Amino acid sequence: MTNNKANNFFSKFISKEDAQRYLPVFWGHGPFPAELETKLNALKLSNEEMIPMASGVPSKELFSVKNITINHTLQLGNENVSVPNENVNINTYHIGDDKFSKQQESEKHSYNSNVAIESVFEYSDNTYGSDSTIDLYNKLIDKFNYFKGNEVNRDNYDIVITSGTSASCFYLTQLLCDEDKTILIEEFTYPVIVANVSMTKGHLAPFNLNLNASVDNGQNPIDIAYLENLLTNWSKIYPNKPYPSVLYTIPIQNPTGLVQSLEHRQEVYDLCKKFNVLIIEDDPYGNILLTNQDKIEFEDKLEEFNFEKEHYLNTLSSAASYLSIDTEGIVIRCESASKIFAPGMRIGVIVANKFFIDRLKNIIDCSTREISGVSMTIFNECCYGMDSLLARQLGNNEIEHLDGWIQWCMNLSHRYKLRQETLINSLYKTKAYQKKLFTCIEPKFGMFLCIQLNLAKLKPELLRSRIDMEKGMQYMDYKLLENNVNAVVGSKLSLDPNHSFSKSGFIRVTVAQASDNKQLIEAGQKIGFAIEAFFNEYLTSNQEYNVLL
Amino acid sequence: MTNNKANNFFSKFISKEDAQRYLPVFWGHGPFPAELETKLNALKLSNEEMIPMASGVPSKELFSVKNITINHTLQLGNENVSVPNENVNINTYHIGDDKFSKQQESEKHSYNSNVAIESVFEYSDNTYGSDSTIDLYNKLIDKFNYFKGNEVNRDNYDIVITSGTSASCFYLTQLLCDEDKTILIEEFTYPVIVANVSMTKGHLAPFNLNLNASVDNGQNPIDIAYLENLLTNWSKIYPNKPYPSVLYTIPIQNPTGLVQSLEHRQEVYDLCKKFNVLIIEDDPYGNILLTNQDKIEFEDKLEEFNFEKEHYLNTLSSAASYLSIDTEGIVIRCESASKIFAPGMRIGVIVANKFFIDRLKNIIDCSTREISGVSMTIFNECCYGMDSLLARQLGNNEIEHLDGWIQWCMNLSHRYKLRQETLINSLYKTKAYQKKLFTCIEPKFGMFLCIQLNLAKLKPELLRSRIDMEKGMQYMDYKLLENNVNAVVGSKLSLDPNHSFSKSGFIRVTVAQASDNKQLIEAGQKIGFAIEAFFNEYLTSNQEYNVLL
Repeated sequence: MTNNKANNFFSKFISKEDAQRYLPVFWGHGPFPAELETKLNALKLSNEEMIPMASGVPSKELFSVKNITINHTLQLGNENVSVPNENVNINTYHIGDDKFSKQQESEKHSYNSNVAIESVFEYSDNTYGSDSTIDLYNKLIDKFNYFKGNEVNRDNYDIVITSGTSASCFYLTQLLCDEDKTILIEEFTYPVIVANVSMTKGHLAPFNLNLNASVDNGQNPIDIAYLENLLTNWSKIYPNKPYPSVLYTIPIQNPTGLVQSLEHRQEVYDLCKKFNVLIIEDDPYGNILLTNQDKIEFEDKLEEFNFEKEHYLNTLSSAASYLSIDTEGIVIRCESASKIFAPGMRIGVIVANKFFIDRLKNIIDCSTREISGVSMTIFNECCYGMDSLLARQLGNNEIEHLDGWIQWCMNLSHRYKLRQETLINSLYKTKAYQKKLFTCIEPKFGMFLCIQLNLAKLKPELLRSRIDMEKGMQYMDYKLLENNVNAVVGSKLSLDPNHSFSKSGFIRVTVAQASDNKQLIEAGQKIGFAIEAFFNEYLTSNQEYNVLL
Repeated sequence: MTNNKANNFFSKFISKEDAQRYLPVFWGHGPFPAELETKLNALKLSNEEMIPMASGVPSKELFSVKNITINHTLQLGNENVSVPNENVNINTYHIGDDKFSKQQESEKHSYNSNVAIESVFEYSDNTYGSDSTIDLYNKLIDKFNYFKGNEVNRDNYDIVITSGTSASCFYLTQLLCDEDKTILIEEFTYPVIVANVSMTKGHLAPFNLNLNASVDNGQNPIDIAYLENLLTNWSKIYPNKPYPSVLYTIPIQNPTGLVQSLEHRQEVYDLCKKFNVLIIEDDPYGNILLTNQDKIEFEDKLEEFNFEKEHYLNTLSSAASYLSIDTEGIVIRCESASKIFAPGMRIGVIVANKFFIDRLKNIIDCSTREISGVSMTIFNECCYGMDSLLARQLGNNEIEHLDGWIQWCMNLSHRYKLRQETLINSLYKTKAYQKKLFTCIEPKFGMFLCIQLNLAKLKPELLRSRIDMEKGMQYMDYKLLENNVNAVVGSKLSLDPNHSFSKSGFIRVTVAQASDNKQLIEAGQKIGFAIEAFFNEYLTSNQEYNVLL
């Protein structure tokens, strides 16, 4: 598509309110007559610094903090680093003037990151992220091959940095939702998207998940037949809602943990392309890969790393981003550092075609404006610092740029895999499992585990109505709490309980927050007790108390 | 007012859209039957930790960063600390496990802040700020006596932490603006508020400043007669705009630098109270006091500090917050750490009555959600660390809690005062000043200086029309740029150029960004040259080129 054609096409997706949003430009200069332009250009070339009297940016002499020193590691896990010891590989870097920090002579593995303190503490280069963080994310996008196979030129896409995916989705719903538009959302989802939409006049509607999908049967976690019918017969199904203009999906699904492979995504994409529906891909878990890899030991550590890296990136590409198949520029991807670095950083990114990104920049300009410079710089420098750690670990400086980050993501994946195994093994040892009271959707990515109760056979009463399901799952939650387990029951995660109640008989747990393996084993046992108690008691004479809703 | 009465009263100010905004609560449990409640309470008392399987919060073993060390100082200014030396008082603190940092034995003035790394890197306690930062800001509010003299109970107010005042004003306009409401804004202002309003369907209208106000004549920088007439005869003046429901003011005015004393605020407040108009007080500069104090040397350093502190706080109270006179709960105050700590932190706060704060919390929940934990913690710990620095400086531990922060604000004020003096003295030495081509509004607070051109006498052609003024001030900007000075001309800072063009003949400069005194002196000289050239050339045969708009 030519730019103009593309812009006409994309304009149709923009909310009515968007056109009125603007920031009066008060900091600009010009236009200039030609004679002056020449003069000013000569002045620029003269190397004389322009005297900055326009903007209320405090000079660095007005900052209290002179230096920040960060100690970070590639190594993970309690057994390694809960008690710091000689064997832990620590990288130390300084932001600001390291003359202000009292360094030890023996601090061998320390480097000055060459980041001046004012670049952390002053206003950012842009409201949509510092140049350095934008540059880093662009490099990571290429490193992880998001655009591999995409026929549309990579140059048609751009990014903005945000304070996390909640903020990203807020901006996106501001951009794309209005009273004449409907956003399609997976029937079970992370409910903040509903809150984002409630900031607009937009409509929402669920599309169905296929909870029977598994790696073995290869089925699409998204119920494609349902989606096609929905888009074909929309006005019959929802006579009072506008036709959908955007579909929101979490491809490593929250809460179910189901994973859309690249083939599954192609099926969804083809439908969306056909029916002119944008796709928002919300993927905070995409780098947390839980599949096992046979460990092969190489003589050369770098060779070993490269082998593992190739395996990791190849497996990731089996569930590659929708961007990789986006021929029309209709995919918008949201990513976050929350799950793969730290939630408290509040760093996220939106990747989309330039038309949408330009409008998003305007929304950011008009609303919340910039995010933490401290967070952005620490994220950047840790990311780059991982290279130092990896080079040291491998005893080899010949690594590729940002390979350290790949190693970090692999270490994190490995740790999550261990956590999942521990929990699942513990669950499978319970009496409840032996009695076939539940099954698990064994996740191949991410941090969630979906425990499906065998209601159809053993408590079919719950399937009769929404209220029966909600009461039953409330009793299930009571039993979990009695066993001192804080989890989320499925009935609380549906977009429309009337639509999805019959599928709500599950418990979503995460392996992220538990302190250690011991707690995960205990969790498995206690969840087992709770499920047993639920089936033994609920709607029988053993029921201990009434359920309140 | 009783709570119900108050809520009915405040509800009238809320935008129509606000009621539809909500976050589905999926993480909650209950309600519980009484028997279960008893059981769960017993469990809580048993000290057994609840197993956290609900929320995707990575455990601290999953964070790369193990330790952050910060070096900061109370001392300011190039002459002191541009080259670090023995005499600079540095405080060092550690976030996270300091066993991971390689400390020197000689690092005497270092302390572990007892902040665990997970409290920085995990999700925050609340979307509207960490408990620790909320607690700190509440202490600062009391320390600076914002509510002194306020008849309404301090308990009726609450706060939210935001990522700075732009975000605060965005949330506030979302809360308070809709198609049936008008927000009044000073005729010259910081234009981001216009962008914030453009995210709503709200209307805006200017109210007049009195650019003749000075400390000597005691006049109100807000044209009270204009405001009263506006509110009395609204429908005649603006037949097509809804009656105003809120007034936005920057009491240490940007761009003019004019300061509303407490008496001036009382006049504005009385009008707003009478006409049922809320007041948003946007005050990022309130702690930067530029008045001189005669230096009195005491034998006891603590005594000296206490004397200076008393003077500082007393002078601040002469321009105390609107909160201190808010009997009706109609004042909303926005503050920021940008100008008194560092813009890159992105930390701001909104203080308002609990009714509004509850609705703001909901908006934050539904939109951008939480802000940087790293920023919040560094801000907290630096703030508290200032006490260590002050105690060391005074050789006395008997200081009051947060006195260190007061000392920091006084040091910063002193530094800004020196910068202003340097610039103003340089300006007053110019030929342009001697020829009476301009006057300065000498600021008593803040970081801006407003240079008023003597157009009425010397270039009255600019006062004929909006276009004459804009062309003239564009030529003024050309001359500034030719002299390598980046400043902002008044015609770019008016809310409504048709309304305010005749007052737009000024240049706004800031003393914040210049690197040092030398640059400020040079700035003064060059601004003088530029002004002289403007008056010599514009609309004469000497004019070098045409003006483009």
